[in-house]
Amino acid sequence: MRIAFPKEAPPETRVTLTPTVAAKFATLGAAVRLEAGLGAPLGFSDDAYREAGAEVVPKEGLLEGAEAVVRLNPLREDEARALPAGAVVVGLLDPFRNLGAVRALAERGVSALCMELIPRTTYAQKMDALSSQASLAGYAAVVLAAERLDKVLPMMSTPAGTIAPARVFVVGAGVAGLQAIATAKRLGARVEAFDTRPVVEEQVRSLGAKFVKIDVGETGQTAQGYATALTTEQLERQRQGMAKVCAASDIVITTAQVFGKRAPLLLTEEMVAGMRPGSVIVDLAAATGGNVAGTVAGEEVVKRGVRLVGLTNLPGAVARDASQMYAANVYNLIEHLWDRAQGRVVLRLEDEVTSACLLTHEGAVRHAGVRELLESL
Amino acid sequence: MRIAFPKEAPPETRVTLTPTVAAKFATLGAAVRLEAGLGAPLGFSDDAYREAGAEVVPKEGLLEGAEAVVRLNPLREDEARALPAGAVVVGLLDPFRNLGAVRALAERGVSALCMELIPRTTYAQKMDALSSQASLAGYAAVVLAAERLDKVLPMMSTPAGTIAPARVFVVGAGVAGLQAIATAKRLGARVEAFDTRPVVEEQVRSLGAKFVKIDVGETGQTAQGYATALTTEQLERQRQGMAKVCAASDIVITTAQVFGKRAPLLLTEEMVAGMRPGSVIVDLAAATGGNVAGTVAGEEVVKRGVRLVGLTNLPGAVARDASQMYAANVYNLIEHLWDRAQGRVVLRLEDEVTSACLLTHEGAVRHAGVRELLESL
Repeated sequence: MRIAFPKEAPPETRVTLTPTVAAKFATLGAAVRLEAGLGAPLGFSDDAYREAGAEVVPKEGLLEGAEAVVRLNPLREDEARALPAGAVVVGLLDPFRNLGAVRALAERGVSALCMELIPRTTYAQKMDALSSQASLAGYAAVVLAAERLDKVLPMMSTPAGTIAPARVFVVGAGVAGLQAIATAKRLGARVEAFDTRPVVEEQVRSLGAKFVKIDVGETGQTAQGYATALTTEQLERQRQGMAKVCAASDIVITTAQVFGKRAPLLLTEEMVAGMRPGSVIVDLAAATGGNVAGTVAGEEVVKRGVRLVGLTNLPGAVARDASQMYAANVYNLIEHLWDRAQGRVVLRLEDEVTSACLLTHEGAVRHAGVRELLESL
Repeated sequence: MRIAFPKEAPPETRVTLTPTVAAKFATLGAAVRLEAGLGAPLGFSDDAYREAGAEVVPKEGLLEGAEAVVRLNPLREDEARALPAGAVVVGLLDPFRNLGAVRALAERGVSALCMELIPRTTYAQKMDALSSQASLAGYAAVVLAAERLDKVLPMMSTPAGTIAPARVFVVGAGVAGLQAIATAKRLGARVEAFDTRPVVEEQVRSLGAKFVKIDVGETGQTAQGYATALTTEQLERQRQGMAKVCAASDIVITTAQVFGKRAPLLLTEEMVAGMRPGSVIVDLAAATGGNVAGTVAGEEVVKRGVRLVGLTNLPGAVARDASQMYAANVYNLIEHLWDRAQGRVVLRLEDEVTSACLLTHEGAVRHAGVRELLESL
């Protein structure tokens, strides 16, 4: 089976394949063909991929005869239509917002394996690109905030007096939030965290952070492990509880996303204005609407001295590791689907992973939620 | 005694006085007068200083009647000439390179207390601004490098495989180097360090870093605790030993300065070229000529994919804490010199601290090395 790896468009610095993972595909028996220069953003030469058993070709002809195509970022509609009919495509497809492309994939008869829909089971963890990238985003958010902050994170005892540790507030203790907590603790900050799911309190505390308790009434999490959306009243109570913590914090990192929906607004303009000049907010939900009033997706803005970071590709800040993780996630998925006898991916709908992440197949959109959105257009 | 605090010129973000330290001066009995807007870069309002007992005035008239003036950055010659005749001035005066201003200070009859010349004794540590700022520079260098690096610093064990820790090489284990080591270790990096002074090996190892041994023959340190300059041959042997470590490192931080002299060149162009694309070098000696071939003082440049950071004010990256430390260092010096009966600074040449740091006094340049340089002009 020939698997094609096109380059991602700049400013993306992550790549879909490393020479190490290319060698694993070769061992599996796949014929890997990648676009020339794919590894350049990370300094991987075409020769490094060739040595790993891959074929390197120019953009023209890359997709010819390809039975599978691996991408990272969501495809544009025209890219979806240019895929070989009937091929398998793997990628972070942004299925709820990129509806034109989803329709095009279905119409093209493409079997789209959507990395966002990998089930959150123990077995599938090794394929879970959302988690691997979110974890790196959590790390990158803290390092970025530390670099922008006008003070150090650790306590320092000096002959001229003691420097107090920075206070970091992490809102949302999912994969990204937990890694942010761990990184801020590593750097010596005093860390507080909040999440609407009381079940994560123990995880937060095991990392050495304080769990902020705000009584918002009944909450829960979905079967997929995401926090359920709060009511308007619950959100208001939550904001009041958070305002005080924000005002005392040097860094706030928000990570609250609701899968398939706009991110909830957690920090109002007033709460941002209550923070001291020089403090830093990193809004990891900027790409899906933002948790913070005033965040601009893809940008950094300063309001009354408070820096609002809305950069949307924080995993890309640690592109080397993010690429290694993403390539491994994709490899693990393909290996899972691989039929050694046939030497190719075979999609079996009774398989739990396949069933969950197969977004389009044989001309149809298989995910009910996405299908409903498409029908409502 | 009236002490005046002029604003520092942008892009400096550090300030010479915080409201907390202003209150300490008031308690001491000093009449503090500062330039309006002095604290603005850190969000300290003029009112915050007034509440601490200070007087806030416009630039015009600030120096009128001032018997002492506190600065941070080296004075320009015209600024030196504008000081009240016979006044005391305190600051980081860059005495070996800022000779025109030193002569002007002497001619003006100013008693210049040079913060770089504070003796490195246990007693004087609380006044040691070079050390307080260097320590913060060491922290900032690592955080800055981590933010620029294309990978994470800690090892991460994930379901999709293990991310190796970044390798950080710190050259020069003085105050800045030791703080850089500590910060990189905090972040989970694998840290190696080198210094020509074997005495620091134990300090390096106590921070959890590996001490790189390179036999360069006999070396030593000055009475002030600085490394003595190496011979040309010693430098060459040192470079060869370091080249291998550099090539394996993701981040290199160089901190080698020789007081009053140009910084030694430690990383050649070839050594930089031997590092992988995406790696980061921070040259903390950039302001005094640089330890790294290709460093541009005050800038960041990328050569064959390797980022060379030559920013010259890294303490300014954590300006809040750097200001707190500097203001405390200056306060501690002035408090040491304070005569409670007279309510003013009294300079006694038999005092060890005064004798060491009094650069100009009663029309003369007191420091022999600086005087020689001036006479050779």
